[in-house]
Amino acid sequence: MSQHAETAHPDLLTVGIPTHWYNLAAELDAPIPPHLHPGTREPVTPADLAPLFASGLIAQEVSTEAYIPIPEPVREIYAMWRPAPLIRARRFEQALNTGARIYVKYEGVSPVGSHKTNSAVAQAYYNSLDGVRKLTTETGAGQWGSALSFAGAQFGIDVEVWQVRASYDSKPYRGYLMRTYGGTVHPSPSTLTEAGRAILAKTPNTTGSLGMAVSEAVEVAAADPDTRYALGSVLNHVVLHQTVIGQEAVEQLAAVEPGGADVVFGCAGGGSNLAGLAFPFLREKIHGRSNPRVVAAEPSACPSITQGEYRYDHGDVAGLTPLLKMHTLGMDFVPDPIHAGGLRYHGMAPALSHTVELGLVQGVAIGQHEAFTAGIQFARSQGIVPAPEATHAIAAAAAHVADDPTEQVVVIGLSGHGQLDLPAYAEFLDGNF
Amino acid sequence: MSQHAETAHPDLLTVGIPTHWYNLAAELDAPIPPHLHPGTREPVTPADLAPLFASGLIAQEVSTEAYIPIPEPVREIYAMWRPAPLIRARRFEQALNTGARIYVKYEGVSPVGSHKTNSAVAQAYYNSLDGVRKLTTETGAGQWGSALSFAGAQFGIDVEVWQVRASYDSKPYRGYLMRTYGGTVHPSPSTLTEAGRAILAKTPNTTGSLGMAVSEAVEVAAADPDTRYALGSVLNHVVLHQTVIGQEAVEQLAAVEPGGADVVFGCAGGGSNLAGLAFPFLREKIHGRSNPRVVAAEPSACPSITQGEYRYDHGDVAGLTPLLKMHTLGMDFVPDPIHAGGLRYHGMAPALSHTVELGLVQGVAIGQHEAFTAGIQFARSQGIVPAPEATHAIAAAAAHVADDPTEQVVVIGLSGHGQLDLPAYAEFLDGNF
Repeated sequence: MSQHAETAHPDLLTVGIPTHWYNLAAELDAPIPPHLHPGTREPVTPADLAPLFASGLIAQEVSTEAYIPIPEPVREIYAMWRPAPLIRARRFEQALNTGARIYVKYEGVSPVGSHKTNSAVAQAYYNSLDGVRKLTTETGAGQWGSALSFAGAQFGIDVEVWQVRASYDSKPYRGYLMRTYGGTVHPSPSTLTEAGRAILAKTPNTTGSLGMAVSEAVEVAAADPDTRYALGSVLNHVVLHQTVIGQEAVEQLAAVEPGGADVVFGCAGGGSNLAGLAFPFLREKIHGRSNPRVVAAEPSACPSITQGEYRYDHGDVAGLTPLLKMHTLGMDFVPDPIHAGGLRYHGMAPALSHTVELGLVQGVAIGQHEAFTAGIQFARSQGIVPAPEATHAIAAAAAHVADDPTEQVVVIGLSGHGQLDLPAYAEFLDGNF
Repeated sequence: MSQHAETAHPDLLTVGIPTHWYNLAAELDAPIPPHLHPGTREPVTPADLAPLFASGLIAQEVSTEAYIPIPEPVREIYAMWRPAPLIRARRFEQALNTGARIYVKYEGVSPVGSHKTNSAVAQAYYNSLDGVRKLTTETGAGQWGSALSFAGAQFGIDVEVWQVRASYDSKPYRGYLMRTYGGTVHPSPSTLTEAGRAILAKTPNTTGSLGMAVSEAVEVAAADPDTRYALGSVLNHVVLHQTVIGQEAVEQLAAVEPGGADVVFGCAGGGSNLAGLAFPFLREKIHGRSNPRVVAAEPSACPSITQGEYRYDHGDVAGLTPLLKMHTLGMDFVPDPIHAGGLRYHGMAPALSHTVELGLVQGVAIGQHEAFTAGIQFARSQGIVPAPEATHAIAAAAAHVADDPTEQVVVIGLSGHGQLDLPAYAEFLDGNF
């Protein structure tokens, strides 16, 4: 006598873990414009990047292969939480009074609660192959810093994080998480680097910025041959690693929706989350198997796709990084301090910007009030409290389908949970924004 | 050409959601001693319980059926996160240098991050059948209060929570979570009840206690015919609801370990988490299909099984509840303020105490330092930061298998994640305990 259903509930759809990362650019007619050396304005060479990045990652940055095998040690760590669930959000559909069938790809099941681990694990792995002993990085709210700290622990690599002081002081939980994984975290600017000391000498009371934190992390990595630097978004290899999200989602969806997706929504800050979800759906489109629209939901406070220019710009405030062809608000742009810290970036991943230019992705700007309104509605109907970043995608999808009886298949990227962002929800419920 | 593995990674084991709750007591020779009326000391009748509990829950409290069907509306909500994963913790095995194969049943995937939702959803459902408009409850750290707030949102029931003031003030995130789900949370003692006002008149600066909060929640429920009260552990019907954990785990484990479990570890506070995991394993034992030991890991600061007496005692500090036959440190016992707030309860579920008396479950007391040492080791190897409560089970298992080459199958109940408990980890890393 069996007291169990024989199969998993159909609303919780699972599938295997991808064996390859997917490189959409290799299948497009036009290549992504190359990154340029900040001095010569010539395309950067692998040798230019070698002091900062592991060789395996540099190879991926310029790869023209459509499929790149995921090393087994990386897949074994992915298996600790992947495949991430694709959830049919029936109660959210009811709340929206819509005929759409809404599927949510949920990355909050990762150890640190966001998609950032997908690239952190890969970056730590390739650095371990090169014998790297330490990785440095910057972080804002702390999602990336905690993901890299976790990944470093898996490969015996020390991780040192410079966190923007404003976040370090006001949102200490993610710093505690980095330390729990064995990482080290400093508020930035710090007195540990020349860059930090110079900034503090000029502006002793600064609350810091991502640009300052990048400068500190890069300085420490460049000074030690056993240390490299890690970046959590924007670059091609980071986008590549995130395609496990979309590959799983395409296959999970195919099991219940043979026609595939009609619209895919994701939030976009640096771009790796949306690209990771959307590029495998765009693969289906360019191969004629389905015809999804892809919508990049960005914050009104930092609208690089909808308001920025498509041109070469630096990735950091100090102008140290290569020039990247991207949608940018300008390297000096300082967005308002919205709660979605992960979306406060002046530029957009070159790989994603390229697809925008090709008409494969459209941007939409979402205000913070609208985003949290949708976040609350989602939490009360589906239980999961979305990360503030992800509420932008949910709001964009809700605006698209609410009170519309049209049957359509909608996929929303839920990049992480918001358990460590609950003070932002409390401020919203208190009517503060 | 498939770029995917055909099946889920074998370390992430899934199975269907149970169709029934399992009532171990119905299969034991000796029944659980009945609860007694606090005035007459006669067994309580359903009529005695009706002012506080929904009729469907009262029926479950005294049921002698071995299997009780889970209503479809409850299963549909379970399907939002269940089946919860059973994870082979290979990296933790390596860290422990053990020959044991360790499997972790992880309840942190629920919307609020703990097992508490399993009973909260069922309780909200049965109350909705009775037309109940509001549920009141108490909460300490806030796991139960947030679970019930989530469940109430699913069935259109208002939820009002009295949270121990010390936790309300020092750990505000779970209060924000209750509000995000639409619940209302008050610090206890409050000026909203006679009980609260009386306590405040005597001790205006009290930090509150679970016993005080129970008194306030019960007073409000008893005064309104449309309001009932909900309890998050201890009672038979709560234990029953949690058996979805163990039923899934037994079946998930059977797919990879035909011999079943050798030892099952869970943390025990009120007892519903451990009982929910262990009772289906004990079903396997009494039916002769396997022969697992079950270990209840309790905190040294509140050792009801290993140091308490087995006798009738009240469930609350005020002596308002029925008398329960259980292992108890006495209703007036006040445990030290350890971080595992969910384990700070003077008694133990009668259903679990009964199995201890029958020799089916053994207790072990774990100190807080040992618990967090294991929690850090688990986080660094497996990524998941365990709730402070669950670190007790992990530490007990680690002590059992570390540096022992014996091949044995160990199951650990990981009742929730510790993302909202990270300040406790930081205090531990700072050497404060």
